[in-house]
This record gives sequence, C-alpha cells and structure tokens, in this order.
Amino acid sequence: MSEAAAVAVVDWGTTRLRAWLIDETGKVLAERRGDDGLITAQQKGFSTILEGHLAAMGATAQLPVIICGMAGSRQGWLEAPYVTVPSPLSAILAGAARVPGQERDIRIVPGLAQRLADAPDVMRGEETQLAGAGLPAKGRHVVCMPGTHSKWVVIEDGGVAGFCTWPTGELFSVLAGHSILRHSLGEHPEPVTAENPFFRRWCETALSEGGDVTSKLFSIRAAGLLQDLKADDAAACLSGLLIGGEIASARRRYGDASASVVLIASGALASLYGEALGLAGLAVRTVDADEAVRAGLIEAARENGMIARTGVAR
Amino acid sequence: MSEAAAVAVVDWGTTRLRAWLIDETGKVLAERRGDDGLITAQQKGFSTILEGHLAAMGATAQLPVIICGMAGSRQGWLEAPYVTVPSPLSAILAGAARVPGQERDIRIVPGLAQRLADAPDVMRGEETQLAGAGLPAKGRHVVCMPGTHSKWVVIEDGGVAGFCTWPTGELFSVLAGHSILRHSLGEHPEPVTAENPFFRRWCETALSEGGDVTSKLFSIRAAGLLQDLKADDAAACLSGLLIGGEIASARRRYGDASASVVLIASGALASLYGEALGLAGLAVRTVDADEAVRAGLIEAARENGMIARTGVAR
Repeated sequence: MSEAAAVAVVDWGTTRLRAWLIDETGKVLAERRGDDGLITAQQKGFSTILEGHLAAMGATAQLPVIICGMAGSRQGWLEAPYVTVPSPLSAILAGAARVPGQERDIRIVPGLAQRLADAPDVMRGEETQLAGAGLPAKGRHVVCMPGTHSKWVVIEDGGVAGFCTWPTGELFSVLAGHSILRHSLGEHPEPVTAENPFFRRWCETALSEGGDVTSKLFSIRAAGLLQDLKADDAAACLSGLLIGGEIASARRRYGDASASVVLIASGALASLYGEALGLAGLAVRTVDADEAVRAGLIEAARENGMIARTGVAR
Repeated sequence: MSEAAAVAVVDWGTTRLRAWLIDETGKVLAERRGDDGLITAQQKGFSTILEGHLAAMGATAQLPVIICGMAGSRQGWLEAPYVTVPSPLSAILAGAARVPGQERDIRIVPGLAQRLADAPDVMRGEETQLAGAGLPAKGRHVVCMPGTHSKWVVIEDGGVAGFCTWPTGELFSVLAGHSILRHSLGEHPEPVTAENPFFRRWCETALSEGGDVTSKLFSIRAAGLLQDLKADDAAACLSGLLIGGEIASARRRYGDASASVVLIASGALASLYGEALGLAGLAVRTVDADEAVRAGLIEAARENGMIARTGVAR
C-alpha cells in the first residue's frame, strides 16, 4: 500500500487526529483515527505521534505530509500564521507553513483571521473544510459549520469574505457541567436527538426571540422544579435553545443571504442543525464534514505541489 | 442588649448568612455576618449554626426568629412552599412556614413561583428585598435585582405581577472559569469597574444587539489573539457584554414600562448596573440591597405578629 502513497494528509484538532494516505490521483489508500489531539501531543511530542500513525499505515520515510487544524496554533507544533480575510480559498491552502528541522516535508495549513476592530475573529481547521465542501466557484454562499465553536462563513466567488463564531457547543458543555443547570440535566444526559419535542419547542422559542437566549436559560431549571421536566428533556431544551439562538442570531446578521445555507456537519450535529435550520424556514444543503476536511486536505496537497493537479479522483 | 430584643431576623443564602437582633420598634440592636450559608449548614446543621449566631448576639432562648432565603429551599432547613404569583407582597411575608420540632418560634419566608407554561420561574430571598425596598403602594414598577441569578420583577399596586431571571452572574463565572475565555481573562482578573472603557463599550454593543450576546462571546478571545486585549480588560468586556445583554433583553420584554427602573443592589454590582442602565437611557432609582433585605425581614416579623405593627423605626 505504501508504494502508491503520494502524500499523507492529517486533520489534527484539539482532542482528535485523523490521518489518511493518498495516492497521486487523490484516492484514499489508508485511514487512521486517534484521540491524540493537540492536548496529548503537547505532552508526547507532535513528531512522535505523527510518525506512529504514519508507520502504522506503512508510510515511507520520504512521504510528505500536510496538516490542518489546531496543530498549527500557537500552542501547537508550529504556529502557521493566520491569513487575513477576505482571501481566496486557494491562496489560503497554498500558504501552508513548513515545519522546520524535520527530514520529512511537513506543512501546516494556516488559519484565518478577521482583523476588524469591532468583529475580530479567528478559525483554524474550518478553512480546509470550506475548501473541500465543493462550493460553486461563483456566487455568494452562507455556510454553517456547527461545533464547539460554530462558524458561519460568507463565501464570495471562491473566497472567504467574512465569518463569525458562536460558541454554541462550548456553552452547552459549560452550562451542563458547571452551572445550576447541572442539577436539571443530571450527570450523564442521553445524547439529544432532533426528534425530541423539547428540542423542537425550545428551538422555535429561541428562533422567535432573535438570538436572546439568556432570558430563557433559568426557565430550564424552573421547569425542573415546577413542571417535573426530566433530565434528558432538559438537555434537549438547552440544546434547542442554544442552537435556535445561534440560527436566529445568524439570520439577523446575514438577512436574506441566509435564506439558503450550506451546512457542513456530520452525525448528530448534522441532524440537530438540519432540523433547526428547517424550523427556521431556511433551505439547507448538507455536506458531510468528515468528507469535506479530507477533500480539503487533498486540495491543499495539490495547491502545495505535493500531488499533481491532474487526474482527480476520490 | 438581649433584654430589649423582640425578634431575630436572618438572611440565609447559599453561601452567606446575615443576622440581626431587632427591638419592638424595628430598631437594629446587633448584627452578625458569616460564611455559613446553606452549603455549610447542610454539613453542620441549621440549628447549630443559628443558635451559635444567636448566642453570640446575646439572644434569649425564647426569642423568635424569622428567616428568608435558600434556607427555605428543598435543600434547606425546611421547604417553605412557593407562593404562586401574582400575589401581594404582604401575603407572601405572612405565609412564613414554622420549622417543626424547635423550642423557639422559627419561621421561614416562602419563595415565589411563576407557574406559566412557557415562562416558569422561581425566586427565594428576593421577595423579602422587594418587600423592604420602600416601593410605593400604588402603580406599576419595574425592579432590577442583579446577582448570580438577576431577577427583574414587575410590581403592580404592592403585589408581584410577574418576574424573569437572567443568570448573568453565573454566566460570567462559568465562562470565566471553564470556557475558552479563561485563557483571555486569566486566573485572577481584577474586579471590573464601571469606569473601564471596555466595560462601557461592550455594554453599548450588547444594548444595540437586542440581548444577543452569543455572537459576541468569542470576539473576546479573538481580541486577545489579534488585538492584544489585556486580561483585566477582557473581564470588563465580558461583564459589559453580559450586563448590557441582560438589560437589552429586559427592555425588549418590558418595553416602555422599563423606561424607569428601581435597582436593588449593593457595592460593585450597584455601580456596574447603574452605569449600564444609564447607558441604556433608563431612569434609575437605586435602593441598597443590604438595607432592603433587613427592612423586608422586619416587615415579615410584623406580618407574622412577632413584633407590633405600630411604632415603626429603623
């Protein structure tokens, strides 16, 4: 297998790592997934972890590697400086920074910085998903990428025009674990599903409140005390409220441009956001996030001359 | 001193306790403050802690006691059942529940429950502050009581018409301690002051966004990365954003009725909310929260026949 590999591509986030061997045509030859993200790598060493995964996939010592995600942050392996938006996606990928002092050719895709005085923002990893999402080369597109720090991005003619972050996943996590709502949600609430009527109802409430979620948070606690709300349903209320609030806020910000949204997501988040965007009356086209990041990394390998531009396959 | 005492009044919250000896005319004879709130009392026993404070003030064994706050919650000494709003303030105070099995006459003021299907809410302790705030017996008044769980209350002709909770203090605390913003705010940020220009600027931003704060939270982190925002100023941004967001949300909810607000607060919170309400263009009358709760407890002692209704003094 290693004979045919032309490049290894790695999505290296805060808590997870995924790596693939890719041949000259862009075809996937091997895949690895691990929990050794940035936090683990800070302890064990980035090179040690990467070489372990490459060896397990049978990669040669000469195989070049391209990486996206938090491995390129200040706390990562090498700070790959932010590209300032607006910027074409192709120029972002082409700006990958080479890790010094390594025998291998190892490069890290830069993150994006929005250097506006009243709306500073950053992303790292999502730029590669955007590049692999198969967006049309022309026109204006509003993209929603849900997660710990959800990003909404405006793409214009193949470039990132601007973006904004809603820390929706993190709000859920810190409120469920550290606020008074932990008494309502319990220690281990079941994962929230889009079919839960509490998810739908609280999502609709948040959508009608224009992104104001703080006045509704304590109601979840009070509903536990006064209306016997169950722990799993309380988790669905919180999820619906926060996701609905994010969408209401984004809709207020982007106006008619957000009537049609590209949702880049996988698994449970894809179904929760798909449902919530539908409740908001928005037209949604969903792109699988796992596939998008891999396709974006392959595109980054091409932009950096690690594999050929011709002979595209998946 | 104990000779003249007619009643002991106690504000018994989650983390703190304050107690006063009061004479027949409502005059304060002695005061105690302690860190032995609900959490400590659950370990050491409510009676033990109360008797310790009473003995230290020289109270007799026959002196009756009236208590407000979380000591009356399900996790407290005795659950003093919620009074359902709307309700006159005097009826709330008169509904104090007697702690059984005690030689002393010890009563606990009930909390309030708003049993609305789409806006359930509870309070415990603030009802006594409201009763002691010296509000006019007639007319409609919007009251803001900031804190861990800020309460905004509509008072109509001496009764609680309805209320809503914004968990602003708790949001600050969990975001500062457990979210990615902890990297921006540092371990021990200085207390935020109303004079900090970042507090004012972020408060104004939140006021102009109609209570949508979630789209701005991550900007504090990004401003640290891109604009060299200092830790103490980051804390001021977060405080301004959350307090401004609370006020914008309340203003949206209460409309013209909130053009004039009674602020029941003490210390730093009084100055931060005073500044923020001013930035919002609202007329503010401030009542000291410490004095309000003591006056409310004395009024509760009167409503329960523990001291005479005549001969009012402070």
